[in-house]
Amino acid sequence: MDNFNDLEKQIMSRVLELASRGLGQTRTNPLVGCVIVKNNRIVGEGYHQYFGGPHAEIVALKNAGKSATGATLYVNLEPCNHFGKTPPCTGAIINARIKKVIVAMKDPNPLVNGRGIRTLRRAGIKVEVGLLKKNAQQINLPYLKYIRTGYPYVIAKIATSLDGKIATRSGNSRWISSTTARKYVHRLRSQMDAIIVGVNTIIKDNPELSAHSYQPNPIKVIIDPYLRVPPKSRIFRDKNNIILAGDTLSNLRRAESIANARFIFLPLNNHRLSFRRILKELADRSFNRILIEGGGTTIAEALKEKMIDEFIFFIAPKIIGGKDAPTAVEGGGVEKVSESTNLNFLEIKKVGVDIFIRAKPVYH
Amino acid sequence: MDNFNDLEKQIMSRVLELASRGLGQTRTNPLVGCVIVKNNRIVGEGYHQYFGGPHAEIVALKNAGKSATGATLYVNLEPCNHFGKTPPCTGAIINARIKKVIVAMKDPNPLVNGRGIRTLRRAGIKVEVGLLKKNAQQINLPYLKYIRTGYPYVIAKIATSLDGKIATRSGNSRWISSTTARKYVHRLRSQMDAIIVGVNTIIKDNPELSAHSYQPNPIKVIIDPYLRVPPKSRIFRDKNNIILAGDTLSNLRRAESIANARFIFLPLNNHRLSFRRILKELADRSFNRILIEGGGTTIAEALKEKMIDEFIFFIAPKIIGGKDAPTAVEGGGVEKVSESTNLNFLEIKKVGVDIFIRAKPVYH
Repeated sequence: MDNFNDLEKQIMSRVLELASRGLGQTRTNPLVGCVIVKNNRIVGEGYHQYFGGPHAEIVALKNAGKSATGATLYVNLEPCNHFGKTPPCTGAIINARIKKVIVAMKDPNPLVNGRGIRTLRRAGIKVEVGLLKKNAQQINLPYLKYIRTGYPYVIAKIATSLDGKIATRSGNSRWISSTTARKYVHRLRSQMDAIIVGVNTIIKDNPELSAHSYQPNPIKVIIDPYLRVPPKSRIFRDKNNIILAGDTLSNLRRAESIANARFIFLPLNNHRLSFRRILKELADRSFNRILIEGGGTTIAEALKEKMIDEFIFFIAPKIIGGKDAPTAVEGGGVEKVSESTNLNFLEIKKVGVDIFIRAKPVYH
Repeated sequence: MDNFNDLEKQIMSRVLELASRGLGQTRTNPLVGCVIVKNNRIVGEGYHQYFGGPHAEIVALKNAGKSATGATLYVNLEPCNHFGKTPPCTGAIINARIKKVIVAMKDPNPLVNGRGIRTLRRAGIKVEVGLLKKNAQQINLPYLKYIRTGYPYVIAKIATSLDGKIATRSGNSRWISSTTARKYVHRLRSQMDAIIVGVNTIIKDNPELSAHSYQPNPIKVIIDPYLRVPPKSRIFRDKNNIILAGDTLSNLRRAESIANARFIFLPLNNHRLSFRRILKELADRSFNRILIEGGGTTIAEALKEKMIDEFIFFIAPKIIGGKDAPTAVEGGGVEKVSESTNLNFLEIKKVGVDIFIRAKPVYH
């Protein structure tokens, strides 16, 4: 694996950097970047910019023009070999007379899965696989999960005080975390396809949930079994809203009073909507990077259905206190500590004055 | 301040290391270490080992014997000049013909406060002050607080899940934090003069609260307004227990059934004991390094009276969940986030798999 030299690693890092520019726009497609190198000089670059748009290889080949002949093409994911929304990349690579292709990782999508590499090799192109493979997997965790399971990748983001409160006893939560942490969240939102919140969070906090100065603004998804969302909530200041509600007659009627939102009506089960079903509906609409922003009941339900892939906690240097102040994960909880959901801490750092913790649940 | 050389700094570090060996045993006395150096060689060492025992200087001078003549004495706190439980150290230093004394910091105790240094200088001894002053202040924060206010130094220690729970909804809390974190707590206990718990923690968890393999075992203090503690609780396996209870007739009677505990009966105010009063009683009995180990109500009360000097949180990689699961700080809590107690994070590190956070409240 490590018979790649430093220059090659540097170029693949550039590829990954380009790939990540598509964050928040490629949806169920992977993040892909591409760099074309000839005589140790970059002659073409590109990345997959948006869902349905041209693939990274095509953009880079166009950018390189005739210089592509005899050049080496670097790409973080195996080029596709099938007609999807766009024609196959392998054909374009062969036609451009690329001499060598370096791929970070195979594409596990059953429509590709080694076929792209085989086609290139059959055409006489030298193909090497595995350069910065782990980094390549890391940036496409959501794509890999989608291909493997058909479900989106879900991050739950929570801001708490050191004593674990997400609001005071009266529901006040402005602001628990610092400006720096909130900016971090705005950027995080811009990298997501959709943000999920429970209707209680809308009622209590009336948040905007926007990416503010960052682009693009993600779709906001409100889980609202009995359609209690106030029609004048701040969240409706833009049109990027989907409301998931129970398929009751009164909900269907009430929906007419809410502008700037699309509706998905689903069967209610025990007064609630299944999280698994919600995520499936979102995946069917090609939303893949999902951020849950609470509250505690919504997160507890998602966790119970084992649908959270990552937690991001911001812990603020504050003590709020209060037996009745709400916490990050509510619901029923477990009976014994030994039954709790174990986590792996992936990252712990300071963001402004707050502590940032990224953790991965280990489901049994 | 920084006209001390590296060798001098190294020796004062050794002094502080010796001083800290007295942790858990010097009570309202300071931690003091002493090193005597002649011709770049250590000829005597000592530290204040226990409350009422000989001072560090005396131990080190005895250890040095005749080699003390013409030597330099390093000590982290200004030598005393008054008769306390022991005769003044300045006299012993002068008698031993020490040539030079290097002191990390002046003793703010009004009985000393520069007089020790003046006495030495008048006797022709060269005295330098300020070497590793900050470190010297750090290890004696409890002593400095006691001298300034008459109150003990209080650390609240809390083990929570990432979602801020100190137990499950049913009260189960074994074990939230890892073996490594629990060992850390055992050692911490051995460095304390007393450990405070609320009676609910005894009833629910039945903890031993011992230092296990570490020495010595601290005194355990149970806050129990209505004397509800079960007489067969594990905590009574040793005799180091003080129970603080309301001064009611029924409490006085019930106390007879509890062996292995001393009692302090105090007036009840609104069904509770004032935390300030509790700490004053402990200070009067020379307990100065106090660890509160919960639960959430006890900690909330101590915080409300602004009596917590430091928080130590262990955050375990677990999600417990539950609207009714208890949290680190309960009580009423604040109404608005802006009214919460602000903290400074002093230290953030991994201890085993857990996150260790040390934080200092900033009271208004």
